Amino acid sequence: MFTINDNYLKLQGSYLFSNIAKKVAAYKEENPQANIIRLGIGDVTQPLAPVIIEALHKAVDEMGTPEGFHGYGPEQGYEFLRSAIAKNDYQARGCQIDADEIFVSDGAKCDVGNIQEIFGIDNKVAVCDPVYPVYVDTNVMAGRAGSFDQAIGGFNQLIYMPCTEENGFAPELPNEVPDMIYLCFPNNPTGAAITKDALQAWVDYANKNGSVILYDAAYEAYISEPGIPHSIYECEGARTCAIEMHSFSKNAGFTGLRLGYTVIPKELVCNGVSLHSLWNRRHGTKYNGAPYIVQRAGEAVYSEEGKKQLQAQVAYYMENARLIREGLADAGFTAYGGVNAPYIWLKTPDGLTSWEFFDKLLHEVQVVGTPGSGFGASGEGFFRLTAFGTKESTIEALARIRRL
Amino acid sequence: MFTINDNYLKLQGSYLFSNIAKKVAAYKEENPQANIIRLGIGDVTQPLAPVIIEALHKAVDEMGTPEGFHGYGPEQGYEFLRSAIAKNDYQARGCQIDADEIFVSDGAKCDVGNIQEIFGIDNKVAVCDPVYPVYVDTNVMAGRAGSFDQAIGGFNQLIYMPCTEENGFAPELPNEVPDMIYLCFPNNPTGAAITKDALQAWVDYANKNGSVILYDAAYEAYISEPGIPHSIYECEGARTCAIEMHSFSKNAGFTGLRLGYTVIPKELVCNGVSLHSLWNRRHGTKYNGAPYIVQRAGEAVYSEEGKKQLQAQVAYYMENARLIREGLADAGFTAYGGVNAPYIWLKTPDGLTSWEFFDKLLHEVQVVGTPGSGFGASGEGFFRLTAFGTKESTIEALARIRRL
Repeated sequence: MFTINDNYLKLQGSYLFSNIAKKVAAYKEENPQANIIRLGIGDVTQPLAPVIIEALHKAVDEMGTPEGFHGYGPEQGYEFLRSAIAKNDYQARGCQIDADEIFVSDGAKCDVGNIQEIFGIDNKVAVCDPVYPVYVDTNVMAGRAGSFDQAIGGFNQLIYMPCTEENGFAPELPNEVPDMIYLCFPNNPTGAAITKDALQAWVDYANKNGSVILYDAAYEAYISEPGIPHSIYECEGARTCAIEMHSFSKNAGFTGLRLGYTVIPKELVCNGVSLHSLWNRRHGTKYNGAPYIVQRAGEAVYSEEGKKQLQAQVAYYMENARLIREGLADAGFTAYGGVNAPYIWLKTPDGLTSWEFFDKLLHEVQVVGTPGSGFGASGEGFFRLTAFGTKESTIEALARIRRL
Repeated sequence: MFTINDNYLKLQGSYLFSNIAKKVAAYKEENPQANIIRLGIGDVTQPLAPVIIEALHKAVDEMGTPEGFHGYGPEQGYEFLRSAIAKNDYQARGCQIDADEIFVSDGAKCDVGNIQEIFGIDNKVAVCDPVYPVYVDTNVMAGRAGSFDQAIGGFNQLIYMPCTEENGFAPELPNEVPDMIYLCFPNNPTGAAITKDALQAWVDYANKNGSVILYDAAYEAYISEPGIPHSIYECEGARTCAIEMHSFSKNAGFTGLRLGYTVIPKELVCNGVSLHSLWNRRHGTKYNGAPYIVQRAGEAVYSEEGKKQLQAQVAYYMENARLIREGLADAGFTAYGGVNAPYIWLKTPDGLTSWEFFDKLLHEVQVVGTPGSGFGASGEGFFRLTAFGTKESTIEALARIRRL
């Protein structure tokens, strides 16, 4: 008889956002007339920018002609896109990253979930707490996380790095040295940013201890303050210890178009084996490249007109972030984030748990957010709101929350 | 110090098609004027059908409007596509498969590569020999295949099921019972089909022994003869032992658009755990759905006009298959396949090895095919040609091969 991967049985409940979707669907079924405002899942709402639409139409037309048809592309992504990424996201910022160190994919979630495959099962993994659940769940599935321990509210073989009000939501260098360290800045879910000096300390720590940093830079486009690094490769020595993952979802609204990329510098080696070559092999064996038309859309993100249109889109969401931040303060809430990130991390009032506050918001004012405890034990008593709604719905949601 | 997944170090060379690409690139660099005809990799050459182009443009336009914008979709695929698949590919053929048993993805290669994740590492895996390399390599990466043994020309923990001229390229039920059995019909690379009776014997064997069949039906659209099953679910009892994977690449030319799906019937359980729920969890955790616009293109495949246009496309390629089959026979080659599959499997002449014949074809007549030995030890002395070229290039390739 065949057996299953029983690590899956150690997973806790279902994926956070599926849970929320189910609760909302149940409420909606009981209250079909309810006008629910969703500031929960980090999904964008603005339509694709004109420059993206134009690039898509053009690429679709190509695909309908014998000369312009594109079948299997390079698994690592088309040269035109890899070059545009290297030039704009790295070289223009003084980071030494070449086009052939970039692996284009169908989204950062896939890369963030799959990257652990190229590492041994025996590695000790560190994650922030609260944390984007994909880092934890994919390591549970692989057998690296151990079992769930109710007493600690987490998995017994993971190193949790608390991000709390007390430490300004900045994880501290762990005493027990991890092999793999997941970091996400600007942070999901807390909205906290990291300074270049603080990130340099992580890079130095990783290089000193032989750890690898898996750096999720999905929210980089929302950085508004100086002194906040847009890439880990702005830090000296990052090429020997860090992998960076990027998304086109948040800077260009590609959540439904699917595009992302991962950077693996060629100097990143383990006992002489290059991680670049391992990931290249994985990409070639289990993946067939992102759609040609979507890669052309990605290229348009880096055109002059594209940059202009997308800066306006990011500014639109950041105006929402400001409205939420200030509106919550006005209403007497304590809230963090929303300055260099599209997320606002608020303290639940009256000692409510995160899920109690979720239910209260959903049932009393029909606003959906994300319970902080869904991101980890240290998220209990917090709640995440996103700036990705429309301006109108954001204003309306704030008015409703004020009424609470 | 972090460690790597050292199963990767057991992989043999690089992925077959990357190897071929490198050889062709090297030849091309030395002979920039050479007019190379590629009948190697199974990539289509006809542009996307008008109905697909139209659906794409329409969906792109939607994405540019606030009302029509689609962000994150259901990870399992949009209902409109899952329903169209269930209705057309299954229910219309008398197979009892529901829409919610279908998981839409960005391609069969990904699914075929990822599906092994939900199974235990201790499972014994059986593959045909010759075999599509992804089945083997992904199990090597997971640690299920053991080490490569030069003496047997394969991995010492896999069960290889030889498909040879003697058994008509039909694998025999193995004596040592495997837990996971990969089958692909119509077959890549041999082009052989399986009768319904023969497939029923596999289903019965799997049910009797508690094995799971991973059935790759990527070439189903090329079946031209009666009595050949289009789906394993045409066999009685398949719902309790089989997972089926499909591609839109070969029936609709989506190699550069990326779309596929996997079917997991809800009755397929292991000690009370449903494989459907495990795959659902994997999909939700590591994947974010295929692009909305590509799923709309997939929907168009099932429209009346779409079916008509795509049948014409398949007929075009099958005319190439006929030309290759008959042309090779005329030239004195022994060749198989090409009747229910777009692949022709020919015996190399004069006792040449597969790679020797590859080099001869490339260097002497500038035709690229795929060496049979790249698919496994039993593929030695064979060579795969595909029907996916244009008619003109196929005729020209045959004329050149005749000159050899």
